[in-house]
Amino acid sequence: MKKYELVADKIKDYINKEQLHHGDKLPTITDLMKKYQVGKSTILQAITLLTQRGIVYKVQGSGVFVRPTGQDGYMSLTDNAGFAHVLKKPTTEVIEFSEKKAPKPISEHLHSNEECYFIKRLRKQDGKPFVLEESYYRKSIIPFMSKEIAEGSIFDYIREGLKKEIRFSDKYMRVRKLTADEAKYLELKEGDPCLEVYDTFYLANGTAFDSSKLVYNYKNSKFYDQSSDDII
Amino acid sequence: MKKYELVADKIKDYINKEQLHHGDKLPTITDLMKKYQVGKSTILQAITLLTQRGIVYKVQGSGVFVRPTGQDGYMSLTDNAGFAHVLKKPTTEVIEFSEKKAPKPISEHLHSNEECYFIKRLRKQDGKPFVLEESYYRKSIIPFMSKEIAEGSIFDYIREGLKKEIRFSDKYMRVRKLTADEAKYLELKEGDPCLEVYDTFYLANGTAFDSSKLVYNYKNSKFYDQSSDDII
Repeated sequence: MKKYELVADKIKDYINKEQLHHGDKLPTITDLMKKYQVGKSTILQAITLLTQRGIVYKVQGSGVFVRPTGQDGYMSLTDNAGFAHVLKKPTTEVIEFSEKKAPKPISEHLHSNEECYFIKRLRKQDGKPFVLEESYYRKSIIPFMSKEIAEGSIFDYIREGLKKEIRFSDKYMRVRKLTADEAKYLELKEGDPCLEVYDTFYLANGTAFDSSKLVYNYKNSKFYDQSSDDII
Repeated sequence: MKKYELVADKIKDYINKEQLHHGDKLPTITDLMKKYQVGKSTILQAITLLTQRGIVYKVQGSGVFVRPTGQDGYMSLTDNAGFAHVLKKPTTEVIEFSEKKAPKPISEHLHSNEECYFIKRLRKQDGKPFVLEESYYRKSIIPFMSKEIAEGSIFDYIREGLKKEIRFSDKYMRVRKLTADEAKYLELKEGDPCLEVYDTFYLANGTAFDSSKLVYNYKNSKFYDQSSDDII
């Protein structure tokens, strides 16, 4: 993690601890420099990152202000920090762990027809299923995977174990009716609504390494998105 | 529109016209400076904007590369350019135009309990309804509105007519079943699935001026989101 990213996290923590609300003003750049003992350019980079992430906005000539933060129980659709950061007591049940090629449209999202690790998982919060996940990880890029890793955070393993940088993702989403099989896992009825998301993740060199299909339980999942503040 | 925003649009057009695909390399910074007759800092700002919007990514020491673009028929959930840019032959039918106070949770999103313009619209594409929209515009901020304006692009009117800058938005989303009344407008059945989005828009000074509830027809709407490339 770079210095400005650490400072951005500290400013975010400060916003949370001080319980700042929509429109509250952040300390000045000079005050932030003193507070975190870093130079002006680090503070400016941290502020830029926070505007990109929709956490603050700049008003020319007036300063930097806080944006509304996600309401309780809402998951970010666009930040890829994972569920663990927003959910209480999430658990993961590995339903299948095997090796196979990805079917369409996953193989198209991956730009590859090679052998993958296939991992089917059910995520629960407080015992309630909120998402059924079918993931394909390219074996040429993620050379080792195990059921034990899949029971925890696969992304933490890729970042910390394999020292690879996960950089961006594409999502394709639609609403549809649940199949009987999906409904069984999600503890709903066949034909009940769901959000289906195809999510593809890329490394820092632009290589797609994982593509997943996620099927969300409509009763147990809500989402938010704070657009980037576009001024740069 | 600022110079770097114009250049960013030109680079985006270039990517589309040349039909560049995922992983294709953009011309070098020097070549782009020559091509668009602007300085280095303008090109760098344009590239930063395009990375924020998920259109390109930077690989340190290698250059700038193209990301996959939204598939046909998918609407961006996060860019606020409006439907007209992605849909073929969109039409708008104004169902109700009146003045009233916003109910909860809209009034909470607006941080205001004042009188609003209320506009209920049905959007169709190729004659098929894809979203039912109930919008509240604060009268103290948008002092004039008419049914005729609501039949076109309200945001174009705010930008071009009122010369106000629309800067960012918050969205809260969930999947649920349609009510009988919604189903009638969307030409679906009561209990069919839908995506419900609460969308609040802010001006450059951070003031919320519009909050809307959107109910999407699950058969006629699909979405994509390309995350920002976080490197700055």
